[in-house]
Amino acid sequence: MNAPLTLILVRHGQSEWNEKNLFTGWVDVELTDKGRGEAKRAGELIKESGISPDILYTSRQTRAIDTANIALKAAGFGWIDVKRNWRLNERHYGALQGKDKTQIRDEFGEDQFMTWRRSYDTPPPPLADDDQWSQFGDPRYADLGDDLPRTECLKDVLERLLPYWESDISQDLKAGKTVMVAAHGNSLRALVKHLDGISDDEIASLNIPTGIPLVFQLDPETLKPVEPARYLDPEAAAAGAAAVANQGAQK
Amino acid sequence: MNAPLTLILVRHGQSEWNEKNLFTGWVDVELTDKGRGEAKRAGELIKESGISPDILYTSRQTRAIDTANIALKAAGFGWIDVKRNWRLNERHYGALQGKDKTQIRDEFGEDQFMTWRRSYDTPPPPLADDDQWSQFGDPRYADLGDDLPRTECLKDVLERLLPYWESDISQDLKAGKTVMVAAHGNSLRALVKHLDGISDDEIASLNIPTGIPLVFQLDPETLKPVEPARYLDPEAAAAGAAAVANQGAQK
Repeated sequence: MNAPLTLILVRHGQSEWNEKNLFTGWVDVELTDKGRGEAKRAGELIKESGISPDILYTSRQTRAIDTANIALKAAGFGWIDVKRNWRLNERHYGALQGKDKTQIRDEFGEDQFMTWRRSYDTPPPPLADDDQWSQFGDPRYADLGDDLPRTECLKDVLERLLPYWESDISQDLKAGKTVMVAAHGNSLRALVKHLDGISDDEIASLNIPTGIPLVFQLDPETLKPVEPARYLDPEAAAAGAAAVANQGAQK
Repeated sequence: MNAPLTLILVRHGQSEWNEKNLFTGWVDVELTDKGRGEAKRAGELIKESGISPDILYTSRQTRAIDTANIALKAAGFGWIDVKRNWRLNERHYGALQGKDKTQIRDEFGEDQFMTWRRSYDTPPPPLADDDQWSQFGDPRYADLGDDLPRTECLKDVLERLLPYWESDISQDLKAGKTVMVAAHGNSLRALVKHLDGISDDEIASLNIPTGIPLVFQLDPETLKPVEPARYLDPEAAAAGAAAVANQGAQK
């Protein structure tokens, strides 16, 4: 068998709205100082691992772009090629964008809250185009036209991500490039669901921590993992995943 | 006539070796705090200008990459597509890399110093592959193989830049994209020589200041300027160009 292909996934570090406990989705918010520190740490972990990324993929969202810029600079790979695409964006959270997670939980109850956050195929209500948190009219999404999402469930994310996985990311992997993807909690959950063949039910309990590179070794023919993916800092990853799972919980 | 195409050139801000008055060339040095400030100012100027870049081109050198990242973030365009290529790198300064400009001037005299700095077709002596400032073996240039430059004159820079101008940058311009190029004093001098049809003699006196966007409006058919290029801060550009011209002068 040929040598496996390497794919590195990095979820952006803490954002201003992560810190404020707000649903963010497609709203373009900045990293916090903590988030920038996580990004730097991600880069140091990549450097220590000896993995050499050849090409970077990011969403069109600042928090993923900045995470990647900081991490790759820290890793000594700021000079690699870059591709950005809205198909790697975070899940569009619909009318929940800009809302406080705990308030939504209190207002709609635990079941509805968890359905919106973690059900595979139930999107929140759509966001109006004239809402202050809508991306309608944002030049970075001009090429989407009326395909701009107004809300998404995880299934929607996977469906818009897969064509790009096939057309671009897969092709670079098959060309032998080590690919780094800097993206978001839910776009990465969708990708991991695809790679690991996780069922629609089981994906609900998968949480990806911020700022800790997750490394896949993929079969060069099938692009399926030849071994379980590993976090470059497993202990921090376990703690981080638990923290994500707990978002919106009563304090 | 169709509307002209827009090309923005940005020379990286002050680097650590600009500050130390050393010949840098392909040595990968960081921006100084002043350089990062210049980059941010460049982005603010782009924002104020109302120009919307669609795609970024950079060299493979950290000081140009960081300048672009900082500038585009400040301009609100950190999310645009990115292409990087060694053909946009600074001129390889051969055996002068790592040397103090004033010392070289004192040791070799004004004429030789200016010949190396500004003659169109006389490169400095080549840099040995085992020199501490050689890029031989640097993974970012692995794809060059033995085409890795050991020294370059400005003519060499233009000759390695033009194929990329034709194959990539021109094509994006002709597709209607507003292109930003973040690069270096000499790779940008070579490009401006080509665009403005400057003679081999006259190019010696062209100096491009750091961190001030230079905007070309190009004919969509010929890609020749339809009007003189303009700096987004003409006063600062004039002062900056004078400072570049004066590098290595007796203090």
